[in-house]
Amino acid sequence: MEPTAPQRRVTIVDVARHARVSVTSVSKVLRNAYGASPEMQTKVRRAIEELGYRPHAGARGLRGQTYTIGVMLPDIRNPFFPEILDGVTDSLEETDYQVFLGPGCNGEKAEARVTEAMIDRGMDGLVLVAPVSSRAHLEHVAGAVPTVVVGRHGSSPAYDTVADDDTEGAALVVRHLVGLGHRRIAHIEHHETDPTRLAEMPNARRADGYRQAMRVHGLEEFIDVISTSYSQEGGHRAARELLGRPAPARPTAVFAGADIAAMGVLDAVAEAGLSVPGDLSVAGYDNTTFAAYGPISLTSVDQCGQEMGRNAVRLLLERIADRARPSTKVILSPRLVARRSTARFAE
Amino acid sequence: MEPTAPQRRVTIVDVARHARVSVTSVSKVLRNAYGASPEMQTKVRRAIEELGYRPHAGARGLRGQTYTIGVMLPDIRNPFFPEILDGVTDSLEETDYQVFLGPGCNGEKAEARVTEAMIDRGMDGLVLVAPVSSRAHLEHVAGAVPTVVVGRHGSSPAYDTVADDDTEGAALVVRHLVGLGHRRIAHIEHHETDPTRLAEMPNARRADGYRQAMRVHGLEEFIDVISTSYSQEGGHRAARELLGRPAPARPTAVFAGADIAAMGVLDAVAEAGLSVPGDLSVAGYDNTTFAAYGPISLTSVDQCGQEMGRNAVRLLLERIADRARPSTKVILSPRLVARRSTARFAE
Repeated sequence: MEPTAPQRRVTIVDVARHARVSVTSVSKVLRNAYGASPEMQTKVRRAIEELGYRPHAGARGLRGQTYTIGVMLPDIRNPFFPEILDGVTDSLEETDYQVFLGPGCNGEKAEARVTEAMIDRGMDGLVLVAPVSSRAHLEHVAGAVPTVVVGRHGSSPAYDTVADDDTEGAALVVRHLVGLGHRRIAHIEHHETDPTRLAEMPNARRADGYRQAMRVHGLEEFIDVISTSYSQEGGHRAARELLGRPAPARPTAVFAGADIAAMGVLDAVAEAGLSVPGDLSVAGYDNTTFAAYGPISLTSVDQCGQEMGRNAVRLLLERIADRARPSTKVILSPRLVARRSTARFAE
Repeated sequence: MEPTAPQRRVTIVDVARHARVSVTSVSKVLRNAYGASPEMQTKVRRAIEELGYRPHAGARGLRGQTYTIGVMLPDIRNPFFPEILDGVTDSLEETDYQVFLGPGCNGEKAEARVTEAMIDRGMDGLVLVAPVSSRAHLEHVAGAVPTVVVGRHGSSPAYDTVADDDTEGAALVVRHLVGLGHRRIAHIEHHETDPTRLAEMPNARRADGYRQAMRVHGLEEFIDVISTSYSQEGGHRAARELLGRPAPARPTAVFAGADIAAMGVLDAVAEAGLSVPGDLSVAGYDNTTFAAYGPISLTSVDQCGQEMGRNAVRLLLERIADRARPSTKVILSPRLVARRSTARFAE
């Protein structure tokens, strides 16, 4: 079902205009602050009544909507996340919902703090981007407030899911590199030991997709996974290990599971006095603005972050309108974007 | 005065533990949702009373603090802003304050929407990063809620200010380039016509600082300002114009007022088949992680975003504790970070 667009709410600015006083004065009256004369109080209270203004969106959380959507982001430096956020904010632009970001969630503890803060402030719905928390915690959160999980697999009756087909995305990269004549293709994965995350996180799917695709192309003996992290430092460390090997064991191509790790690879290659793609082909994942940036020109996988954000908002508004509706999982198809960082390998 | 750190608040998780029920159950009782048995309601309400839990931080906005700090960011893609945000979140980590970001404020209208939403939700204090709104609007906001303005000059009795000495920062770049033998040094500025912004925005100060420094070095005749925008596209457009000129009028060095614009310059130089610094020295401003990234290695000005964020929090907590205290302006000294994108020019 299509949710009905919420009506434009009466705001503090409308009250100020109607009462012919300043926003500051309205705010003072609302806070019972020092300095609001009895006349001012009367004027403002009358305007509030006439317009049906309900002061403080937060307060309305006790009985209704706050028109607030919380978006939890793991790392605002990862240039893929702004893409998702653009999709979210664009979709909400014509509504009365306001998006607030909970930044810097780099672990379960931080995620618990942010999600609790969002619930505590009466937010109407949450979009959790690539959360690492346990399934139980996500279901806790979704039990308290409509929730969409973006960029993580698995599904739950408690929340909706939007993800990219990461297995297929990894296969696209391997096929591309094999097509260019590469056989020694290494993969840099984000290290993971937790069993739920191994089953649900995109990083684990990408590593699996890489292994499967190598087998499909008869390259099982060349499967070579370096386990560090999806960060510039993680990519740098992995590349140093790979480049430090004697020539026959050194890969001719590296598929980093995220563009941010590929950045670290490019840096390490330059430091070693080598060139991309002359000495090493490099591909990433996420098709960030960084990958598209001319002087970098990184082959990558476009998982269409904006489309993920738009889908998340659609599902969230549906669930806010009807909390009992069955949960939905949207899987988007990725697309390979070949650029200058990958080239033909001839022995 | 030093503000006292707020006591740790009783949270919904504490209530659930105390009542020996799930967080979801507590949330249901708080929302008067279907499915909370009378026994459950009694258990939860007793725990709330015993712990002194005040449900919904937002609701407390009517009578007290919500322990929420709003940070308004113009553009989460500009890699300088995460630095400020890190300083803000680090400083608040040991407190009970939660930061929420209002993203995507790319003009006065969007800024009005976000600041109003923050006031409406009873946030305790706001950090406005590089706002473009009129002084009157900023004073409106600061009248309603304690506010610190970061990355914009000018001062007001209504709010505190944290900025970098942008005039000095521009002078550092010009001195560096002159020291390398350059005389034809062009500057890319962010186009501005509004008189208040011309007086208060960092971009205008940097352009002024460039002009002043060129005069100090006896290079008035070479003053050359291209007016586009602080964006990748703006830098690209400016560089194409500069590179399209016949040789004698072409600069040997470009000082872009922001790293994000310098990114566009580097892209345009590569597209033109030229090299940095061989054909053109390029410097930026902000010392972003992008500038520090090995394969880019962009000379830039470090205005210490984290220190700006930390100062903003300190001032904000002071003002939350004492709204009547006089307003304060903190100006930080920038530092030049020379890298490989600038080199000696010999005619």
